[in-house]
Amino acid sequence: MAKKVSTKPPSGMRDFLPSDLVRRNHVVSVVRGVYEQYGFVPLETPSIENLEILTGKYGEDEKLIYRLLHRGDSLKKVLDSDEAVTSARLSDQALRYDLTVPLARVVAQYGDLPKYFKRYQIQPVWRADRPGKGRFREFYQCDVDITGTTSNLAECEVLAAGCEVLSTLGFEAFEFHINHRGLLRALIRTAGIDLSQEGTALQAVDKLDKIGRDGVLDELDARGVSRTAGETLLDLIAEDATIESLKSSISEEEGHKALVELEELLALLENTPAAGKARFSPQLARGLGYYTGPIFEAQVTDLGSSIAGGGRYDELVGMFGKQTVPAVGLSLGLERILVVMAERGMFPELAQGPDVMVCWRDVDRAAVLKVAHAMRGQGLRVEVFPEPTKLGKQIQYADAPGVGAAWVAVLGEREIADGTVSLKHLESGTKSDVPVAEAASVIRR
Amino acid sequence: MAKKVSTKPPSGMRDFLPSDLVRRNHVVSVVRGVYEQYGFVPLETPSIENLEILTGKYGEDEKLIYRLLHRGDSLKKVLDSDEAVTSARLSDQALRYDLTVPLARVVAQYGDLPKYFKRYQIQPVWRADRPGKGRFREFYQCDVDITGTTSNLAECEVLAAGCEVLSTLGFEAFEFHINHRGLLRALIRTAGIDLSQEGTALQAVDKLDKIGRDGVLDELDARGVSRTAGETLLDLIAEDATIESLKSSISEEEGHKALVELEELLALLENTPAAGKARFSPQLARGLGYYTGPIFEAQVTDLGSSIAGGGRYDELVGMFGKQTVPAVGLSLGLERILVVMAERGMFPELAQGPDVMVCWRDVDRAAVLKVAHAMRGQGLRVEVFPEPTKLGKQIQYADAPGVGAAWVAVLGEREIADGTVSLKHLESGTKSDVPVAEAASVIRR
Repeated sequence: MAKKVSTKPPSGMRDFLPSDLVRRNHVVSVVRGVYEQYGFVPLETPSIENLEILTGKYGEDEKLIYRLLHRGDSLKKVLDSDEAVTSARLSDQALRYDLTVPLARVVAQYGDLPKYFKRYQIQPVWRADRPGKGRFREFYQCDVDITGTTSNLAECEVLAAGCEVLSTLGFEAFEFHINHRGLLRALIRTAGIDLSQEGTALQAVDKLDKIGRDGVLDELDARGVSRTAGETLLDLIAEDATIESLKSSISEEEGHKALVELEELLALLENTPAAGKARFSPQLARGLGYYTGPIFEAQVTDLGSSIAGGGRYDELVGMFGKQTVPAVGLSLGLERILVVMAERGMFPELAQGPDVMVCWRDVDRAAVLKVAHAMRGQGLRVEVFPEPTKLGKQIQYADAPGVGAAWVAVLGEREIADGTVSLKHLESGTKSDVPVAEAASVIRR
Repeated sequence: MAKKVSTKPPSGMRDFLPSDLVRRNHVVSVVRGVYEQYGFVPLETPSIENLEILTGKYGEDEKLIYRLLHRGDSLKKVLDSDEAVTSARLSDQALRYDLTVPLARVVAQYGDLPKYFKRYQIQPVWRADRPGKGRFREFYQCDVDITGTTSNLAECEVLAAGCEVLSTLGFEAFEFHINHRGLLRALIRTAGIDLSQEGTALQAVDKLDKIGRDGVLDELDARGVSRTAGETLLDLIAEDATIESLKSSISEEEGHKALVELEELLALLENTPAAGKARFSPQLARGLGYYTGPIFEAQVTDLGSSIAGGGRYDELVGMFGKQTVPAVGLSLGLERILVVMAERGMFPELAQGPDVMVCWRDVDRAAVLKVAHAMRGQGLRVEVFPEPTKLGKQIQYADAPGVGAAWVAVLGEREIADGTVSLKHLESGTKSDVPVAEAASVIRR
């Protein structure tokens, strides 16, 4: 016996018990189904990546990457050497931090992928973030990306797929906020902010809904952007700014081009499941640095954070290869979708337990197995009570929470002699003796 | 642009491209379907476990565990301190090594699990083993276990489920070899080997098919088991030893009990999908130390290694809790199953690409999206060609390997005016103009 240790999962990590998984699997299967209907194909990459693939990609969040310790002789060599032990010498592999950088690696590695690679990827990622409500250290991402084209049909496809997933899951009051990095850059310049401060300005704007106008101005000020320039920028991206109004505020070409692109995109989306679900949102900035074109984020009413986000990023996917590869993608926040669906009672009734449990006593075990086998052959999910305890106890167990059999099939000497089972529907208490061969038709009725 | 780095996955790890995943997903979905038909419910545990949960469980293989390096201040503290840097101070978490120890942790942690917990778990595990053919550092295990009962119906259920999975996948010539740890222990004692050498003897016997009789005797000799005792043991477990013949060779009770249990189990299995697929195999030992009762391993003809293995282990699952919890389980080797199925051409035809790709030119993009949406509404998997290149090129792309659309739906001015699409079946070349609303019925015909 080992010493008494904590049997909780590590901080920020979760065990998914059967009752959790029936819900998670329901959502994942809807996501997968819709993604496939949109012509996306699956990709999976290893949990572990070489560290050099991940470093330099996530800015200051790089400190959240889980790194793997060297083992055996490699570790011994480092620890025994006279040189100072540094983290760089202790590790050269790490856990996947997102699904986008691995996609870029895959696109560079496999020359025979389709030119327009529409892939979906549903896998966990790891971030050593401070755990909190809905924030975990191991969590699933559900990404769709289309690489190889700058066509706005790609934006339409990822957004339409995202909307279709949310609608299929039962979300009604959701909206995709849409903006354009080209527009934001033009506005930043129009406000007189220096090009070198573009990233700073984007990050400050991204916090607008959290820290407010004054907070953003303070932050810009602290980073060397004048109060006047900051105020001009915030006036330009006022909540009521429209594509039309901005056309007259911006004189430079990049900004106009972005506005026209947005206009076209929003019009096209009206022909997809995103119809009525997408609107221009001048204040949307998105935190990540790598976006180059349209950006989007889905909000549901009464939830502070977004449940989906993405955008066009034409310079990231090519970073490991010889040429630039345009790309656009959308990531659904599985964990948040699950939290909202649970809070709002949005799950359909999902069967967790078996269709029927075979309860038996005073009969040969061979007969029990034969009946179970016959009923499984009828397509039923069949559980067998393992021990010859009192029938009442067996039936009680079948009905217990966590077991949740819908029916029991009682098997005694009489039933075996007759080739029948005594079926009982646990919720209603209805009973009937039926030939084994007809069990499924009774249970499914 | 980052410096040029290798875009291969780390050694022993794999990217699964769409063509790999359609096969993997097919197998996993068969496994999952059969497991659920047998009343098993899903469990998933975090990839990361606290190190103290894993240490002391895997014998000398413990060195293969992937450990996570401390981060930030915790790491700094260790590196900056005057104390010697040791691996124990650098890490207190690690990647899951198997699915059995996490199951034991879960059973101890959640008091409200069903008494007879029949769980399946299909997740990757990580072992820093030397990579080789069919041997990877990240690979999936597909485990079923039943905890809480010593009933031999539990053995029957896991073995029947395993056989049903293999049969459903198309395996015909496979066989489960069955033995019993109680019998092996009795035979070891009967041979005059000391109780303290039991583990050594089991491990040596486990290598019989690899290193042969002389190899086993040498190994036993080297570890202090006399040649005579070794020879007696190997004579007792001669390949042609039967349950009957062993009954007369063994005088002690544990051995007789084990033989009776084996007899009952083998007879019971004849009433399940394991009928004709299970046989007594006196030389089967299994490497792991924790088995306590029946043990089993599935072999397919012409494959050196097993594709499934398991057994009863009544003392492991309780190790983190207050009481012993009997358990029996079976693990299917997904990676080996996939290798064998590929080598033997056992996969059915699995559609990888979309049902249809919309090819278009000289038409409004809105119309393209409308047609795609309408066809998706008919349940089809629809891909949209993203750019208005020449139609011939679009169709060529649709038919390319890796894209593999079955049909193209060509959309030009005429079709839009008529509300039709021009469908072409790529393999046969058959063409027909059909109203958009009837596309699915033509494609499915």
